[in-house]
Amino acid sequence: MDKVNIAEKLSLFTDYWNPRIAGELNGQQVKLVKFKGEFVWHQHDNEDEMFFVVKGTFNMEFRDKIITLHENEFLIVPRGVQHRPVAYEEVAVMLFEPNTTLNTGNTKGELTRENLEKI
Amino acid sequence: MDKVNIAEKLSLFTDYWNPRIAGELNGQQVKLVKFKGEFVWHQHDNEDEMFFVVKGTFNMEFRDKIITLHENEFLIVPRGVQHRPVAYEEVAVMLFEPNTTLNTGNTKGELTRENLEKI
Repeated sequence: MDKVNIAEKLSLFTDYWNPRIAGELNGQQVKLVKFKGEFVWHQHDNEDEMFFVVKGTFNMEFRDKIITLHENEFLIVPRGVQHRPVAYEEVAVMLFEPNTTLNTGNTKGELTRENLEKI
Repeated sequence: MDKVNIAEKLSLFTDYWNPRIAGELNGQQVKLVKFKGEFVWHQHDNEDEMFFVVKGTFNMEFRDKIITLHENEFLIVPRGVQHRPVAYEEVAVMLFEPNTTLNTGNTKGELTRENLEKI
């Protein structure tokens, strides 16, 4: 059992849209990820997903609105809701979600990441 | 579906050791709490518990060691492990844990809080 320093973990990678696993508890995972640019539209049929902004700002686009998230703000996207993160500048995000959650949800493609690295 | 600004939510209360529910997902809850002083020794028999420091510093005491947690660090305490948070100054903490989690775990007493407020 060790503590996790988020800045230290974020310094270990530079790529975007590739979540790392920083912690696991109760069948859930804590992931760290950097966003830049536009992700793909997708939804998670069976998982609610929490996005907590560690550093920076990004927009979570929905079909009917956009929510801008700043540092120390979080958003829970309920299962079944289509969404697309868009980051005009690099942003660091902590995710909290079930360990079954695939980053691209129901939209498998070139941005899909499986067998995530533990850091 | 609305975003949550953590500083704004923390400004809504001043008492210690009384977690508020700031979000719910996948049978888990996101709680915000302020610590100051010494809590009681306890364990959670069925729940792992994550402590993320939003502001300040505190010590998580275990029977065999102490882990000091600073801002933007987190610690996952596995189920069954006795622990006691001790804060020499006020600290603001975000908790992630199953919605069955009682703050004092197996040690019910005057610090036990049930029917937590949603903020």
